[in-house]
Amino acid sequence: MRIAMAQLNQTVGALSNNTAKIKDHILRAADHGSALVIFSELTLSGYPPKDLLLYNSFVERERELLETQILPLTLGGPAVIIGTSHRELGVLYNAALYLKDGKIKSLHRKSLLPNYDVFDEERYFRPAPVRAVEMIGDLPTAITVCEDIWNDSDYNEKQLYHIDPLKDLFAGGAQLLINISASPYHLGKQKLREELLTFLARKYNTGVIYVNQVGGNDELIFDGSSLVYNNQGELLYRARSFGEDLFYIESEELYKSAGLITPPATEDSATVLRALTLGLRDYITKTGFSKVVLGLSGGIDSALVATLAVEALGAENVLGLIMPSPYSSDHSIKDALELADNLGMEKRLIKINEPFTAFLQLLNEDGQPRLDLAEENLQARIRGNLVMHISNREGYLALATGNKSELAVGYCTLYGDMAGGLAVIADLPKMMVYELSNHINRVKGKEVIPRNTIDKAPSAELRPDQKDVDSLPPYPLLDPILQLYIEENLSISEICNRGYEKEVVKKIARMVDKAEFKRRQAAPGLRITTRAFGSGRRMPIARSYEY
Amino acid sequence: MRIAMAQLNQTVGALSNNTAKIKDHILRAADHGSALVIFSELTLSGYPPKDLLLYNSFVERERELLETQILPLTLGGPAVIIGTSHRELGVLYNAALYLKDGKIKSLHRKSLLPNYDVFDEERYFRPAPVRAVEMIGDLPTAITVCEDIWNDSDYNEKQLYHIDPLKDLFAGGAQLLINISASPYHLGKQKLREELLTFLARKYNTGVIYVNQVGGNDELIFDGSSLVYNNQGELLYRARSFGEDLFYIESEELYKSAGLITPPATEDSATVLRALTLGLRDYITKTGFSKVVLGLSGGIDSALVATLAVEALGAENVLGLIMPSPYSSDHSIKDALELADNLGMEKRLIKINEPFTAFLQLLNEDGQPRLDLAEENLQARIRGNLVMHISNREGYLALATGNKSELAVGYCTLYGDMAGGLAVIADLPKMMVYELSNHINRVKGKEVIPRNTIDKAPSAELRPDQKDVDSLPPYPLLDPILQLYIEENLSISEICNRGYEKEVVKKIARMVDKAEFKRRQAAPGLRITTRAFGSGRRMPIARSYEY
Repeated sequence: MRIAMAQLNQTVGALSNNTAKIKDHILRAADHGSALVIFSELTLSGYPPKDLLLYNSFVERERELLETQILPLTLGGPAVIIGTSHRELGVLYNAALYLKDGKIKSLHRKSLLPNYDVFDEERYFRPAPVRAVEMIGDLPTAITVCEDIWNDSDYNEKQLYHIDPLKDLFAGGAQLLINISASPYHLGKQKLREELLTFLARKYNTGVIYVNQVGGNDELIFDGSSLVYNNQGELLYRARSFGEDLFYIESEELYKSAGLITPPATEDSATVLRALTLGLRDYITKTGFSKVVLGLSGGIDSALVATLAVEALGAENVLGLIMPSPYSSDHSIKDALELADNLGMEKRLIKINEPFTAFLQLLNEDGQPRLDLAEENLQARIRGNLVMHISNREGYLALATGNKSELAVGYCTLYGDMAGGLAVIADLPKMMVYELSNHINRVKGKEVIPRNTIDKAPSAELRPDQKDVDSLPPYPLLDPILQLYIEENLSISEICNRGYEKEVVKKIARMVDKAEFKRRQAAPGLRITTRAFGSGRRMPIARSYEY
Repeated sequence: MRIAMAQLNQTVGALSNNTAKIKDHILRAADHGSALVIFSELTLSGYPPKDLLLYNSFVERERELLETQILPLTLGGPAVIIGTSHRELGVLYNAALYLKDGKIKSLHRKSLLPNYDVFDEERYFRPAPVRAVEMIGDLPTAITVCEDIWNDSDYNEKQLYHIDPLKDLFAGGAQLLINISASPYHLGKQKLREELLTFLARKYNTGVIYVNQVGGNDELIFDGSSLVYNNQGELLYRARSFGEDLFYIESEELYKSAGLITPPATEDSATVLRALTLGLRDYITKTGFSKVVLGLSGGIDSALVATLAVEALGAENVLGLIMPSPYSSDHSIKDALELADNLGMEKRLIKINEPFTAFLQLLNEDGQPRLDLAEENLQARIRGNLVMHISNREGYLALATGNKSELAVGYCTLYGDMAGGLAVIADLPKMMVYELSNHINRVKGKEVIPRNTIDKAPSAELRPDQKDVDSLPPYPLLDPILQLYIEENLSISEICNRGYEKEVVKKIARMVDKAEFKRRQAAPGLRITTRAFGSGRRMPIARSYEY
């Protein structure tokens, strides 16, 4: 039996278009002689649909399209397994539906609902009350949704849930495991998936078909990378990463040795680059934009974001604003110009001296600069205004260029450099910004990002001779401490036990906590690590701190 | 037996200070001869502690303070029922602890974990596996936490959860119901509480003690309004609303008729006024500020916010910036000045013509205004810069002054009038802004908010002769449609069925959806209605719309 797997990039909420795409893939799979087509989790709505699910009309429309558009194709066509919401007696489930011969043959509701990190599934769904094996051809099959396969007590030291759906299903005679997922990317995730699926194939002596969503949806980037294993845990197929795919397997192959040894997926700067490019491109296009504007400071952050934007959208769709203030160094302007030229993107030079002076006339009695923090922010905000003005007038989406390290410690200006519709590298620690920039130059075989931009000491250039290290610990020290505090939720003393100095750790923790109000108003940032700011980290603002 | 109930305003995360306050109240209650002191839900951490709970060190410190500071007071002192997190075998619960004679005598874990609207309790906690009645004096008692009492199938047509903890507990012989809560305010909430508690008292023939948290924590305002009922459902005590309280009841009173008929709590503009005042004051003080700055446009929104700020913080702590542009009318400046004088607050007049001109020189070839939307936003952003500059330099917290109607349809400028640390009236529809303003003038017996500010047609004054009705349906039409779309999650056709015109509803829905990106970056807004923007409404940005 030929099975087709469709790894699609859906737009959240675009029910009609998503349906059309699903139909198209069913027809293509049918043309290739498939008896079954498998789609990912919540393919109809795109994942995550969030509070759209609170609209009854949305859930009803989803079902209507399924019944009127998709179901008929299975009459005389291939069977379909598809992820969709399912309402029953007023209760909503996240379900995989098995469609065959024009009917909904069976329903496989998700048992384990992730409600940690960026996930809110308990907000919308109830867990499956029962689980049952379904015959697919002559194969008794466990049809599961995403999280359902992740609670194996032999694999995980710690279980998040009381039940393991696979235990029931394989005790019930399952011989094939199908899992439809919407599993977002973070650095290291694919390794975890491949380890788990190999393990499950061997443990249950089962073929494994894993179909994941692909595409960027707001902060989340879904990498696809769907997988097929035979019952010996040999990897038979790894679908495209960061792109759509429609691929096929003969069910017989799932139960014979392939003699294959496939090296595990590699994850490195190249993967991060592809993830960010996809996340950026999808955010722009799915919000209805085609071109972006950003400030180019001559520094490495904006250089990297510009490079990613050119990669994602083409140089003709990227506009850089070079906006020197009285404190900008000559080399910064030169570096920014050089970058724009290297990338072949449009650039405009707009000196902010005049509005800056006009503000100082209003704000300082003598009209002379005082060189305080407020005036540093003022310069950043004048630039923010210019970026937003060109965004508003000319229809560019504005990109914010801040990295995770500065967002963490609040070394950034709200409504200034934080302004924009998308914060492209908001989840990249500064050291990773360097790594990725060097990687890009290496891959391109030339210094797209100017050498001086990479080599010079980081500076906001908002007062004479300013350097980041005047205010912050050096990044090679800052980044690992931030990682322990933010991604691993360690306390100050636990971090000190890893060999860091108490005063430094305390200072950093305090900066992180005090900057919560800025992050609350930050643009959505593409997620790359195991814990990004935004919906993955929900902190109170009006709070007290005890160090 | 005398029972004391402490309705406290805790600061989230302030474990040491919160503990000190708890101790102080135990000692005061002991002085008054109390045998038991009852505190609200998660009193030690303050509610909601959010992702602070993901730090093991936080949960451990909370328990350490309980054991070393609070527990000893119950040795020879009154017993205590207190809300705190409780970790057991690596699993975290939201619990009420019954402390007696220096020991944790029993543990009452929350069974029903709200995970809708603003609540995320499934993110942190697991539900109670068991429930048991505890003897308090000679009274078998059901000790419950907040949501646990809200799933009665005789009271609610629809149940959110599979179990009703009260059923078990009263079948197990309970004769007293104690509920410790952190139940946030919205208009109409107290009526629901009083109806439910009267119902439960009568249904189970039980005394009812309900202790709620008070105070503003970020967007949420807790109103206190704790309640005591006898077993005939007569209201014996209604604690202060929007303020701390320590009050007493003799347990015998819970089981004899009081011959009282207490009218239900009234909720109206006066309540909203007190809620906002508390929310504003607590946000300012709990973030470590004492004074606020805001722009005064001469319009009703900023007039109301200034009035609320003066009410909350005193006139000496409120600074108004009057920032006319070339398109501001004379009457606006006059109205703003008059308001500031009426309130006795400090004001500064800063004309934005110069920086506006400086920007136009940079942005328009001829330096002349084009009167487009981008220039409207530019003026708003110049004002945002000025407000933030004074905030940064002089240590004021900036208040955003937008109302819910304009935030809903996006009739506001990101980084402009949306700038600020707190959006005070972000959950007040425009018609409620009028209602509250009129109420204030009525109560004060004079026109604190100038008559002209209330009477004139709303205008952003960002281009000549601009009026809100040029861009928006009139507010008396807009507000009810927004309410149906946002608070009740109705679809366009469902709203039309209520008698509204399809084209109008469609236009409004589209505006709401398209403004999601602005709201994502909005300042926290105080919650007043059943559904506020922010954590109570989680919408995708990069999505498609089908109308």
